Amino acid sequence: MKNPPAPEYAHLHETRIEGTQVFCGKLLDVRLDRVQLPDGQESAREYVVHQGAVVVIPILDSGELIFERQFRYPLGTTVLEFPAGKIDPGEHIENTAKRELLEETGHSASNWRYLGVTHPCVGYSSERIEIFLARGLQRESDQQLDHGEFLDLLTLSLDQALLAVRNGEITDAKTIAALLWTEKILCNGW
Amino acid sequence: MKNPPAPEYAHLHETRIEGTQVFCGKLLDVRLDRVQLPDGQESAREYVVHQGAVVVIPILDSGELIFERQFRYPLGTTVLEFPAGKIDPGEHIENTAKRELLEETGHSASNWRYLGVTHPCVGYSSERIEIFLARGLQRESDQQLDHGEFLDLLTLSLDQALLAVRNGEITDAKTIAALLWTEKILCNGW
Repeated sequence: MKNPPAPEYAHLHETRIEGTQVFCGKLLDVRLDRVQLPDGQESAREYVVHQGAVVVIPILDSGELIFERQFRYPLGTTVLEFPAGKIDPGEHIENTAKRELLEETGHSASNWRYLGVTHPCVGYSSERIEIFLARGLQRESDQQLDHGEFLDLLTLSLDQALLAVRNGEITDAKTIAALLWTEKILCNGW
Repeated sequence: MKNPPAPEYAHLHETRIEGTQVFCGKLLDVRLDRVQLPDGQESAREYVVHQGAVVVIPILDSGELIFERQFRYPLGTTVLEFPAGKIDPGEHIENTAKRELLEETGHSASNWRYLGVTHPCVGYSSERIEIFLARGLQRESDQQLDHGEFLDLLTLSLDQALLAVRNGEITDAKTIAALLWTEKILCNGW
């Protein structure tokens, strides 16, 4: 899974000595590793091993973007986000993107573009989020949500979404990162 | 700590029934709660309780931005980021920002602006990252890094940083979110 660290940054590397799994839930796999630091001393690293996720930027033919409002229990409040979800074991990431868009918004897309990766939580999680742009959207069905999943859908123009970042209504990091990509693609030809 | 959920989204609320701490390390406080879903059914929520953090956008008088390259053990690679760090218990967030900028880059700043919050990991962490812009930078000292902290400093123009997002060299979500703010402030008068 992990690429070998680039040799030009070897002076920053930490090397695993040993490790244990300290919690294994339905969602979280938490590890505690003993590591050797660049100066030869030892330290501990606690982190979550994550299977990865996708986030989808759904752009309607009108130019509006589809967002979700979802209650996020760790924050105790609802959060405005682009559609997103975890990669099932063995699932191709593009299929995850198509599945999550359909399940959460009821839309399919004829035009998919893979943009890249964002790492939400580099200090204590291995999670990588694959960013996809979806255009040519077509309404296929109602939402087909997982058990325990409840969310509202809404659409915002890019300008409305950027204003929502500015006034603190959009705070989700993956969504703001995806909005940077969105603006660059729509306005700067990325 | 948590604000009461806004009443207009009560149909999305999840309510805590009971919970336990399943891991308590030096860094991670992991909880497992039993919750009541909006439809009255029960489910489990696993998440990290986090003390919060800051990220600083340091803009030199030349217009260049200060970045760090740091090995991030959960990813097994180095990551390009803005200076950031955890809020100490009882510490005012502006003091965290000043402390982290000084410790990690050796700079003080005469002009601070608080921009807002980003949530890096809404699915399984309570972490909130307070975003600060720092201008009027002055080199005070060498880095004063914590034990076990090793990082390289570098400067990039805004255009170089955006190009680094585009080509996948900057993937850290808080840094990309902060770059959206940076561009809007420098180019659109936010």
